[in-house]
Amino acid sequence: MKWINRVSKLFQPTNVVPKSYLPKIDVSSKSHQLMINTGIISNSSTGMFTFLPLGLKALEKLTKIIDEEMMLIGGQKIYLPALTSASLWRRTSRMVESQPELFMIMDRHGKEYLLSPTFEESITNVISSLGSLKRNKLPLKLYQISRKWRDEIKPRLGLLRSREFIMKDLYTFDSNLENATNTYNIVKSAYETILNRIGIPHLKIFADPGTIGGSISHEYHYLSNIGEDIIKLCKNCNYYEGRFKESKSYCPSCQQSLDKINSVEIGHTFLLGTKYSEPLQATFIDNNNKRQFLVMGSFGLGLSRILATAIEILSTDLEIRWPLKLAPYTVCIIPPKEGSKEESASSVAYDLYFELQNSNIDVIIDDRIKETIGKRFIEARKSGYPFVVVVGKNSLNSVPLIEVHDIYNSSQFKLELNEVLQYLKNIL
Amino acid sequence: MKWINRVSKLFQPTNVVPKSYLPKIDVSSKSHQLMINTGIISNSSTGMFTFLPLGLKALEKLTKIIDEEMMLIGGQKIYLPALTSASLWRRTSRMVESQPELFMIMDRHGKEYLLSPTFEESITNVISSLGSLKRNKLPLKLYQISRKWRDEIKPRLGLLRSREFIMKDLYTFDSNLENATNTYNIVKSAYETILNRIGIPHLKIFADPGTIGGSISHEYHYLSNIGEDIIKLCKNCNYYEGRFKESKSYCPSCQQSLDKINSVEIGHTFLLGTKYSEPLQATFIDNNNKRQFLVMGSFGLGLSRILATAIEILSTDLEIRWPLKLAPYTVCIIPPKEGSKEESASSVAYDLYFELQNSNIDVIIDDRIKETIGKRFIEARKSGYPFVVVVGKNSLNSVPLIEVHDIYNSSQFKLELNEVLQYLKNIL
Repeated sequence: MKWINRVSKLFQPTNVVPKSYLPKIDVSSKSHQLMINTGIISNSSTGMFTFLPLGLKALEKLTKIIDEEMMLIGGQKIYLPALTSASLWRRTSRMVESQPELFMIMDRHGKEYLLSPTFEESITNVISSLGSLKRNKLPLKLYQISRKWRDEIKPRLGLLRSREFIMKDLYTFDSNLENATNTYNIVKSAYETILNRIGIPHLKIFADPGTIGGSISHEYHYLSNIGEDIIKLCKNCNYYEGRFKESKSYCPSCQQSLDKINSVEIGHTFLLGTKYSEPLQATFIDNNNKRQFLVMGSFGLGLSRILATAIEILSTDLEIRWPLKLAPYTVCIIPPKEGSKEESASSVAYDLYFELQNSNIDVIIDDRIKETIGKRFIEARKSGYPFVVVVGKNSLNSVPLIEVHDIYNSSQFKLELNEVLQYLKNIL
Repeated sequence: MKWINRVSKLFQPTNVVPKSYLPKIDVSSKSHQLMINTGIISNSSTGMFTFLPLGLKALEKLTKIIDEEMMLIGGQKIYLPALTSASLWRRTSRMVESQPELFMIMDRHGKEYLLSPTFEESITNVISSLGSLKRNKLPLKLYQISRKWRDEIKPRLGLLRSREFIMKDLYTFDSNLENATNTYNIVKSAYETILNRIGIPHLKIFADPGTIGGSISHEYHYLSNIGEDIIKLCKNCNYYEGRFKESKSYCPSCQQSLDKINSVEIGHTFLLGTKYSEPLQATFIDNNNKRQFLVMGSFGLGLSRILATAIEILSTDLEIRWPLKLAPYTVCIIPPKEGSKEESASSVAYDLYFELQNSNIDVIIDDRIKETIGKRFIEARKSGYPFVVVVGKNSLNSVPLIEVHDIYNSSQFKLELNEVLQYLKNIL
């Protein structure tokens, strides 16, 4: 028996069906409202969210893209404990700097831990505890995709500024600054590939390393009105600069005036040097058989924030739009209404479903056949399925035709069954 | 460019190579010592472990098996916040019962949370917050695979009794006890399938629901001397009973004496009834348009514990043995030593590597060609690769032969290149 993905069984808020939307959750964030209303996430506590089935599927697709690109640069995936011993953060002097935003825990024996917002100390301690690395292990690139925590004073905008968030963090270890810089550039380029595959235009900005420390740092931004960062952009020649540059009013390249534009930081990379490896004694054995401190890099990508910002940028006020490669289901098939004269064509809908599923296309069928095609079509648009396939009245023609709607490109076609398959396979 | 998995680059403890093992970590646990020494996990803090690349690969394989079986019964995957508001646990009166083992957190505004050891309250609250379910959504089966926490008074035996652990928890929602019992049996049978796919024999025992509550409960056990549970077993007719049965000395079926055997609980299922849905108001709309409390089930599988116990049961004192389907790499290829007369055959090793990789077989190559084949072979055995392929002296025969070692079955074959491929594809 093969499982069939059915809209009727999908776990979403009960009220997703009605024409009117649920009360607004956060008036300033379109994406948050859409994500709550269509059952991508639900609000569990202040700044803490449950990924519902649709949301988790998108998150898993994003994870897969990242895993693939990390594999190509020799990234090795690990999973660090969520709790980091506070004593490690004391040794790197980060305890004081970051304290107010840390969730602290004390165990039954009085030992202090923090729910980690970032893992430089934790990973450096793992390296250190396993002994000095052999030189041929370098560069070492270790990453995880996991939850992080920050006790934001004012959580807001849903996943954009939450207290629990999903982040991919990569840590690199090299023998010297030159090699570390080389590794930094390789990872930076893998990050560009990841962001290009997601498909939302992004800006890469030279940045201030801040409390994480180190010498070189870049931020990755999506442009969106909802963003709390500000970037200066020249609309004439596309010159731009981040908040860390000296403030200019005119483009240094073409002299046009610079616009201030809001943006969301979705990634941040740091060339750390030995800020963590020295206090935590993470070393390698050099060619003269001497222990030397590892030169580190740290690279973050905010997965939950990427999802929310992408939806914010792409969606209309009433209809979710996903980056095509992250949509939880790529195709929604709407079979005929029960009792309609085209009901006999409903087997066509299921045939198509299985053909698509066998081609590894994420497909769901809206089996609520008591509802009209029109009502289900409107809802399919709201739910953000990139392609909606309707088996309706033309399915009874002498040559049966099926409607394929490319929602994001506002185009539609009437195709024969085998053409539908070919069309979707080609495009996906 | 395709990435090549190379032993030389694998992130493991530096001292994995020497003939002698590292100092024992926990004398009573073979699996823990093996997992630490070969770089499956590392010890980050008391009862808290990092999954290193090898360990995470095994965990991901186990996750995939579970996901596949859950999909077949219509399980929908979600991801709940790690922190649960303490107020929810107060409403179900669980705060008092479980307090000493809970990691508690207070946020900057004085609100209390717990680092969830289990998620009945959390998921029931999600259901409740999304509105009364329509009857046609039932049965609803929601699950996650995520970290859980328990502040054990005495963490020990590595992943067998840790303070952070990976668990799969599934929660089911039905309209009445009869349907819930039916769902309970369907999930139970999916659990059997999962455990059968892993391949370690297990026992299913009728159990005491304990503090989780409810009417029916079963435990799943692996038999192992290291286990802290005790099962009575008749070696004659395989009758067995758990610790919750009245104590018998003789088998009720064949009258032979019963042996006491240690076991590890790796799963626990509960038919909960309305213990959580009533206080947290999780409801559905019945056929008379009335709100009724949902009847719930809760089903746990301990992933990190399954991995550790499986290794404990299968391994020798010096060599890790994985369940075949969970081994991080299924095949390790050993190419000729640098400077040996068969060095010219090393391209054969790489050809084979890519052929296996293209067939989706997890393969790694031990590229440390300065080491002898013999030394690398011993280490491959220690590391637990189920199949070790040696491109050695027979690779220069007029008909080149490759050694294939089926380590777990202590057998070996000399095969031609195309036969190696065929053999491994058939067996895997």
